Amino acid sequence: MPTFVQILDFIGTFAFAISGIRLASAKRFDWFGAYVVGLVTAIGGGTIRDILLGVTPGWMTDPIYLICTGLALLWVILFGKHLIHMHNTFFIFDSIGLALFTVVGVGKSISLGYPFWVAIMMGSLTGAAGGVIRDVLINEIPLIFRKEIYAMACVIGGIFYWFANLLGIESVIVQLISGSSVFITRVLAVKYQICLPILKGEEEAE
Amino acid sequence: MPTFVQILDFIGTFAFAISGIRLASAKRFDWFGAYVVGLVTAIGGGTIRDILLGVTPGWMTDPIYLICTGLALLWVILFGKHLIHMHNTFFIFDSIGLALFTVVGVGKSISLGYPFWVAIMMGSLTGAAGGVIRDVLINEIPLIFRKEIYAMACVIGGIFYWFANLLGIESVIVQLISGSSVFITRVLAVKYQICLPILKGEEEAE
Amino acid sequence: MPTFVQILDFIGTFAFAISGIRLASAKRFDWFGAYVVGLVTAIGGGTIRDILLGVTPGWMTDPIYLICTGLALLWVILFGKHLIHMHNTFFIFDSIGLALFTVVGVGKSISLGYPFWVAIMMGSLTGAAGGVIRDVLINEIPLIFRKEIYAMACVIGGIFYWFANLLGIESVIVQLISGSSVFITRVLAVKYQICLPILKGEEEAE
Repeated sequence: MPTFVQILDFIGTFAFAISGIRLASAKRFDWFGAYVVGLVTAIGGGTIRDILLGVTPGWMTDPIYLICTGLALLWVILFGKHLIHMHNTFFIFDSIGLALFTVVGVGKSISLGYPFWVAIMMGSLTGAAGGVIRDVLINEIPLIFRKEIYAMACVIGGIFYWFANLLGIESVIVQLISGSSVFITRVLAVKYQICLPILKGEEEAE
Repeated sequence: MPTFVQILDFIGTFAFAISGIRLASAKRFDWFGAYVVGLVTAIGGGTIRDILLGVTPGWMTDPIYLICTGLALLWVILFGKHLIHMHNTFFIFDSIGLALFTVVGVGKSISLGYPFWVAIMMGSLTGAAGGVIRDVLINEIPLIFRKEIYAMACVIGGIFYWFANLLGIESVIVQLISGSSVFITRVLAVKYQICLPILKGEEEAE
Repeated sequence: MPTFVQILDFIGTFAFAISGIRLASAKRFDWFGAYVVGLVTAIGGGTIRDILLGVTPGWMTDPIYLICTGLALLWVILFGKHLIHMHNTFFIFDSIGLALFTVVGVGKSISLGYPFWVAIMMGSLTGAAGGVIRDVLINEIPLIFRKEIYAMACVIGGIFYWFANLLGIESVIVQLISGSSVFITRVLAVKYQICLPILKGEEEAE
């Protein structure tokens, strides 16, 4: 029986893979290219985190991420034309993934004894770096650097994790608080189109 | 005296470096930029693999890869205008490199005790990731995501390696079978222009 | 009290972060995106070096790099319109950073027992790889592959380091010689617009 966290992990991985595969299909990639972009979106952030932390990436010990990406590809091949009508569902799934990946990244760093700023960086990398690599591979400027709040939700979740942890709250509750803060921040940001200020270029700043 | 595998390794590295340097020259890179792109094409895949496997990249213990890339640069500077007439030769060299790099990647992973899906991933990374970094550096969408079968040849070679290994065949024969399957797949794919299906975009899928 | 090297390190980090943040602002990134690009420019080279050397990246043990990038972002937000008049100051700061980062990269590799070609590679990566990642993230062809001598200054500094070290010169003097050679090469290259030859494309080479 998979645990609740494993189910969330599967949902998040699936949603991240779908986001990569959809963007790859818009660029007319072949099935293999779409699979690679989907996989990188799903596991890229966690892999960079694990390399930095000096531990073996999760997908090298459990094939579930490769299988999950394969199912995501199959889904897009079979039901691609309906995906556009499932926009809201995938937005919720993607936000679940963002929340869970952040919590996993922060928790792993803390359990390895890293200080809080590293934990917050690792949570944000886990949540958002896969999407950055995805955008580099499809030769676009990374979306998260310009659109509404995304990686900042990870930073906020990381800060909540740290404070809740400092207060001596029980581990499961800490994770729930942190994950919820990521999820809620992300949903509110999209609902109310909350963006960070654009950094003005030098010619405009006069 | 270099061994047969070392000669193949040199040929493959040279061919991979040439492919990077030629694309860099089309973008009007300077000699240094061309060297870097050539080097990354040749050693990028193996470096990512070794970082993931937690071992020291090969080029950090043997300068042959840096020297070989230097020779490739010299070759392009001196004989650049004849390269276009040597297209078939370089295609064969490149396919040899692809086959050898895949076999090395799969073999290294298995000898370190990783499961078969990791070994296949590592074989494919060794063969194809250098070309992906090359294309990112010259700011193009990676070729292997859209053109005829390339990285899929590595996957096929990895699967052959695994099965032959499971059957208890002797190590050298396993490597020959695996490498040949990569080489033949690649040559047939180009000869008959075998492509994977393009993933249809949402607007076209209606 | 910070040491002289720590002050140079701060100046270099600040200048590298500013260069990333300015390019991000030209692409209309938001504050978060600009911070990420600035951070990657400042710490990207050292991080790749440390992953290859198998040691923990410096920014994971000391938050100064994250803070320094934050100050650089604040600086651009507040004084962005004056930056263009400080062009020469930032060029000098950037060259100091390039020199120091090279020296640190070469020194770290030698102290870990790596051979000279690895040390020169690591010095160049420390100095120049951050700028390459920066350019990939803003979706431009890396500047250092085409404009006046930049990473070659790191290579020269690495060679000077190695020779001075071989001659048994005292460590501090070795570092001064190496750093000065990077700085002077870079300043002369810009002052006299010294470029490496462009690698001719195949169609032009006839």
